[in-house]
Amino acid sequence: MCQACHGTDGLSKTPDAPNIAAQTEPYLVTQLQAFKSGARKNDAMSLVVSSLSDKDVEDVAAYFSAIEIKIVKIPGQ
Amino acid sequence: MCQACHGTDGLSKTPDAPNIAAQTEPYLVTQLQAFKSGARKNDAMSLVVSSLSDKDVEDVAAYFSAIEIKIVKIPGQ
Repeated sequence: MCQACHGTDGLSKTPDAPNIAAQTEPYLVTQLQAFKSGARKNDAMSLVVSSLSDKDVEDVAAYFSAIEIKIVKIPGQ
Repeated sequence: MCQACHGTDGLSKTPDAPNIAAQTEPYLVTQLQAFKSGARKNDAMSLVVSSLSDKDVEDVAAYFSAIEIKIVKIPGQ
């Protein structure tokens, strides 16, 4: 379900969706739980997380956080 | 102000803060505005964004979105 907007590589496929490749695992878990509880609101995410178990949340966070990225260029450097 | 948690390279310096390197510009603007309006809640971010003008929000989003990243490794591939 995640890949339509975030890709299997964790890179955004639509401007409104964030890159989540290599995102920290605690951050991903916290945000997925916040969408589940309604503390953070987004129509697409609210719909998607409603079907995720706590184990699913952990698995999704583990997968995307395990993607490795490298900085290629920083503006002005 | 951003760099204490997110680095000048946009990579998280603390597990609770997300990587924002190469994040899409519309996403960064939307989230900064959501922290400003209170629609999205986080103690550290609420404090930081309170001093940002709309132009600052645009500049910050432009800077971090202009950082280029490359995928190094995807689990299972």
